[in-house]
Amino acid sequence: MILDRMGQLYPGTVSEPDDFGMAPVEAVHDPAYLDFLRTCWDDWQASGRTGDAVPVCWPARRSSDKAPTDIGGKMGYYGIAIDTSIDQGTWEAALSSKDAALSALRAVLGGERAAFGLCRPPGHHAARDQFGGYCFLNNAAIAAQYARDQGVGKVAIFDVDFHHGNGTQDIFYARDDVLFLSIHGDPKLVFPYFIGHEDEIGEGAGVGFNRNYVFPRDTAYGPWRDALVAGLSRVRDFGADLLIVSLGVDTFEQDPISFFRLHSEDFTDMGRVIAWAGLPTVFVLEGGYAVADIGVNVVNVLTGFESAAEMTAHGLDVRDRA
Amino acid sequence: MILDRMGQLYPGTVSEPDDFGMAPVEAVHDPAYLDFLRTCWDDWQASGRTGDAVPVCWPARRSSDKAPTDIGGKMGYYGIAIDTSIDQGTWEAALSSKDAALSALRAVLGGERAAFGLCRPPGHHAARDQFGGYCFLNNAAIAAQYARDQGVGKVAIFDVDFHHGNGTQDIFYARDDVLFLSIHGDPKLVFPYFIGHEDEIGEGAGVGFNRNYVFPRDTAYGPWRDALVAGLSRVRDFGADLLIVSLGVDTFEQDPISFFRLHSEDFTDMGRVIAWAGLPTVFVLEGGYAVADIGVNVVNVLTGFESAAEMTAHGLDVRDRA
Repeated sequence: MILDRMGQLYPGTVSEPDDFGMAPVEAVHDPAYLDFLRTCWDDWQASGRTGDAVPVCWPARRSSDKAPTDIGGKMGYYGIAIDTSIDQGTWEAALSSKDAALSALRAVLGGERAAFGLCRPPGHHAARDQFGGYCFLNNAAIAAQYARDQGVGKVAIFDVDFHHGNGTQDIFYARDDVLFLSIHGDPKLVFPYFIGHEDEIGEGAGVGFNRNYVFPRDTAYGPWRDALVAGLSRVRDFGADLLIVSLGVDTFEQDPISFFRLHSEDFTDMGRVIAWAGLPTVFVLEGGYAVADIGVNVVNVLTGFESAAEMTAHGLDVRDRA
Repeated sequence: MILDRMGQLYPGTVSEPDDFGMAPVEAVHDPAYLDFLRTCWDDWQASGRTGDAVPVCWPARRSSDKAPTDIGGKMGYYGIAIDTSIDQGTWEAALSSKDAALSALRAVLGGERAAFGLCRPPGHHAARDQFGGYCFLNNAAIAAQYARDQGVGKVAIFDVDFHHGNGTQDIFYARDDVLFLSIHGDPKLVFPYFIGHEDEIGEGAGVGFNRNYVFPRDTAYGPWRDALVAGLSRVRDFGADLLIVSLGVDTFEQDPISFFRLHSEDFTDMGRVIAWAGLPTVFVLEGGYAVADIGVNVVNVLTGFESAAEMTAHGLDVRDRA
């Protein structure tokens, strides 16, 4: 639905992602975790288990930090939730998703004011060595690190998905060259539940470079927008050279698993506000579960942005259009 | 099946448990955890969720230590595995199970050489503030603490279940008045996966008072028995006044979820070896999933014990006999 609407509004701007290989992934994720993701499905089958691979048991509070060798134990060691299973096509899907983000980044590094990576699966819940929340590789983090490695000085990642971007926070928590901001439902009330509080401000060199804006049930666009404006002001103070937006549209009032109250037209305003930051901007797709409205809401953000700035859509796999 | 066999072998010794109330439970478990267990099912239903209450998302490595307020989040905060659901009768069942253990203890404190608490649900995976592995309240730990509070000087808990007694270890990990020993499948290979390694020897005052004997797949009774003898030697050096045995029989060769290779007659020898320690002994039932053989194997332990010492069975709810 996103592609349909993109194709109507921006004919000729949709392109397939390039293959960026494994190096940008290895720059962000733990090697043992990547081994696990790549071999998980084979290991799961070889163990005699049936059905999709899912976590059953996890390192509860006060557990040891040792990783199990059995695949059943590894699932819980690397997982953060049982909502996310692994099967035959998971690894390949995750790889193509990061290529969508990196292709959008490449367009922006090449001079476009903005580009949109239609990433599926999403990425913001994937930490350095953790999967869950339908995420395996952190597309936004991979793009941010790739930008840094290409010479971009400072990168800000703004996560506007309804859920906290725990994975992105985790990856850059001790860093002062990548600023992370997230507006989301209070984790005391909603997934990911155990991370994303306002007192999580970074550690070590990263203190002050992590910012969580936490809101209760039934939050409408007014206070949400205030947080967006405050966050973009922090992005400007930080001196960001590039903005990456983790774009989830599950803040929508009709989203079935979320509890904010944004209307479709609010997403247009959101895009305008983001454009006002005046930065080269890469949008990567995160969550959104009111499926019938995803296309409208995502594209509203992009058209809102474009109403203040030119943008080009990149990183889209036109084969998905069928 | 256990009761049937007990009734045949020991007519007149089976009795219903007494009600010991909440104080012995509160002496071991966290108050907020007990509140959670007691109100979980109502909270789950009130939230609009359907089906049994199960954890979905948990405090993964590097999460905050804040407890969520939403019941969905609490399930993962307090849970260690998705194998254990909570519904209408869970709380009452857990309470009656600890009464079985405490009734067996009372018989031993009253002068019996040994007694057996037929505890259902089991307890050894329940930590101070964690449930899982079909366990909610730690019956062995509650009995041990109650014995201490009744004036017993030193208590040893020997966990012979196939799975590590992570909950019991957790509860007494910093204590030198309760010795915990466990013989079990290597946690790198099997549940509970993240705790139960040999290098976990206690902390603070408890250093040296926690001992894990870890074995690989297909371990037979020979090396298992050597560990039992070594452990009982440690119990003697410790100067225990009371022995509590967490009696799981899932070490049985035909157990469907375990990988040791004990034969039914090995359980008889196990009972004899335990009796040789010469201590007042409380047996509490833990796991065992080869259901047709549980009765034989459990009672083999008890008859083996009795062949060297008198014993009386207590804490049994004869209503279960139907």
